[in-house]
Amino acid sequence: MTSQAIEDAMRRALELAERGPANGVNPQVGCVILSPDGDIIAEGWHRGIGTPHAEVDALSKLSPDSSRGATAVVTLEPCNHLGHTGPCSEALIAAGIAKVFYAVSDPNPAASGGAERLRQASVEVTGGMLADAVSELLHPWLTATRLGRPYVTLKWASSLDGRAAASDGTSQWITGETARAHVHQQRAAADAIIVGTGTVLADDPSLTARDADGGLLAEQPVPVVIGKRAVPAGARLHGHPKPLIATASRDLETVLRGLYTRGIRHAFVEGGPTLASAFVAAGLVDEYLMYLAPTLLGGPRLALGDLGIGTLAQARRLSIVGVERLGEDILVRARDVDAFASDRVDQQEGKER
Amino acid sequence: MTSQAIEDAMRRALELAERGPANGVNPQVGCVILSPDGDIIAEGWHRGIGTPHAEVDALSKLSPDSSRGATAVVTLEPCNHLGHTGPCSEALIAAGIAKVFYAVSDPNPAASGGAERLRQASVEVTGGMLADAVSELLHPWLTATRLGRPYVTLKWASSLDGRAAASDGTSQWITGETARAHVHQQRAAADAIIVGTGTVLADDPSLTARDADGGLLAEQPVPVVIGKRAVPAGARLHGHPKPLIATASRDLETVLRGLYTRGIRHAFVEGGPTLASAFVAAGLVDEYLMYLAPTLLGGPRLALGDLGIGTLAQARRLSIVGVERLGEDILVRARDVDAFASDRVDQQEGKER
Repeated sequence: MTSQAIEDAMRRALELAERGPANGVNPQVGCVILSPDGDIIAEGWHRGIGTPHAEVDALSKLSPDSSRGATAVVTLEPCNHLGHTGPCSEALIAAGIAKVFYAVSDPNPAASGGAERLRQASVEVTGGMLADAVSELLHPWLTATRLGRPYVTLKWASSLDGRAAASDGTSQWITGETARAHVHQQRAAADAIIVGTGTVLADDPSLTARDADGGLLAEQPVPVVIGKRAVPAGARLHGHPKPLIATASRDLETVLRGLYTRGIRHAFVEGGPTLASAFVAAGLVDEYLMYLAPTLLGGPRLALGDLGIGTLAQARRLSIVGVERLGEDILVRARDVDAFASDRVDQQEGKER
Repeated sequence: MTSQAIEDAMRRALELAERGPANGVNPQVGCVILSPDGDIIAEGWHRGIGTPHAEVDALSKLSPDSSRGATAVVTLEPCNHLGHTGPCSEALIAAGIAKVFYAVSDPNPAASGGAERLRQASVEVTGGMLADAVSELLHPWLTATRLGRPYVTLKWASSLDGRAAASDGTSQWITGETARAHVHQQRAAADAIIVGTGTVLADDPSLTARDADGGLLAEQPVPVVIGKRAVPAGARLHGHPKPLIATASRDLETVLRGLYTRGIRHAFVEGGPTLASAFVAAGLVDEYLMYLAPTLLGGPRLALGDLGIGTLAQARRLSIVGVERLGEDILVRARDVDAFASDRVDQQEGKER
């Protein structure tokens, strides 16, 4: 079998992985099984918690005869733990798989060790193929799993001079329809949406992910409110399809760890400016979505307040991963440089195995 | 002759126009002369003040026999005034040109009327062809001529949260090398560079247009300082190749009109934040160049301060004309929506003539 055939299979596995849900506790994983001649004989992917892992899904389509001596190409290192399904390493061994290629190592301490277990059973295991592309797909999940807290996306909408509202507080709608629709898609793709009590009291947001007609999207993030002030009894977010999590804690890292234990891997922080600045100052933002409207506002109502930065050398450095036009607005996507750098290290480690 | 041949000739005239200098009192103009069969028989363009206009430049390459009955295709309405050169309308009539096609009407009251003069002499005149493309090339010059003040480009460099400096005032270098080189090219393309005395006292800028090695570029903007405080005797900008214009006036419109009478058609305003905000609040900015560095700073040192805007409906609306990556930075180019709209009106008028 040529290495090109294996790389093609990994690309296919990546496509299959993308069919699975991007949110939730489990990562998106795809698997392709190749005959000794290099033909694809089965495909599988993970459809979310409680359903078979990608490897088991693919193997389920094969008879024991056809899997024996075959090669499994899978985007994530096969797991080695008992969750809702049995460990994939054991399933691959039992099916007589001879070779396993995977892209990225499993950073989850409870699940890792699959490669080692396979090697013990004399399966030939190679990691690191297409690690960059797979790491990109799994970037939020990998980061969350490594850090033991949700991947944090901070979103704000501002004028080009960094104002989130005019002097009198008016801010609806600073950005246009296309940008707002994009925000709702991002909400739906996250596990939780976090706001401060100031925003709840000022704007009474519903914190749901909606379509252009106001209808609820299929996926809804858990609403989370941080702050000492009480959420009013009549607040719109009490009508959210998911039950509200409210906390008065100011220790954001502890709040995030608490959300992680509840299965939240990706949190979407929508502000307001006080909470957003606190997340940035604490170094707890992994990704930024800045929706910049083609306006200038001036005045005191900034998207970000003080960050505790005294001099330019202390500036929080971002890496811009995309700039796009959304209607009249601009979306700047950026990642924290430090978070980004540690992700690169992970990929390198994956390659070396 | 087909209309396609004339449109092709206009595109060629536009290319020729671009060879001329973009700064200075005179616009960039190109001219193509076609034989009655539609063949290009001469080309010309304007090389700057004191040199022949494009039409005269093109005609100079023809004998009287060959120009008689020919068609002149020119990007700007032929002028009707005596400047450094005679009126182009008379030169075209004297050469026996039978038809004139032009793109954009001359908004300069002292020069306009060329089309009318030509018609009086029984020349067939058609305006408005490729008016959009030519208006775009001449946008700063057309705006300045229409308003009787320089076209104002406001530049600032800021973090993504709209800060021009860290809390302690450090701001060098907030953007990277590519963005800084771009700024120097923009300085060279402008006739004047305007700063406030606060910037002179804080940064002691040279206000020259330089290359990466610090060498002076061929074109240099006139340095202009606005503010009540005196420019220190030892300030770097006294070493500028062009003599300094300093004014204590706070009436920015009057300052601009004064610069216009000195031949300045395009002014590049570099700040600081107080002066920049004053220009924006006065509605005197035609174009914005916002260099956004991939950093967050927080704190009080904003690229723009107060703009006198109380509520969102009063926001200054911009039209984004380009977003590009410059190294690690982002350049957002925008125009004031009102200025942009009136330019569109001009083009429409040009088409109807």
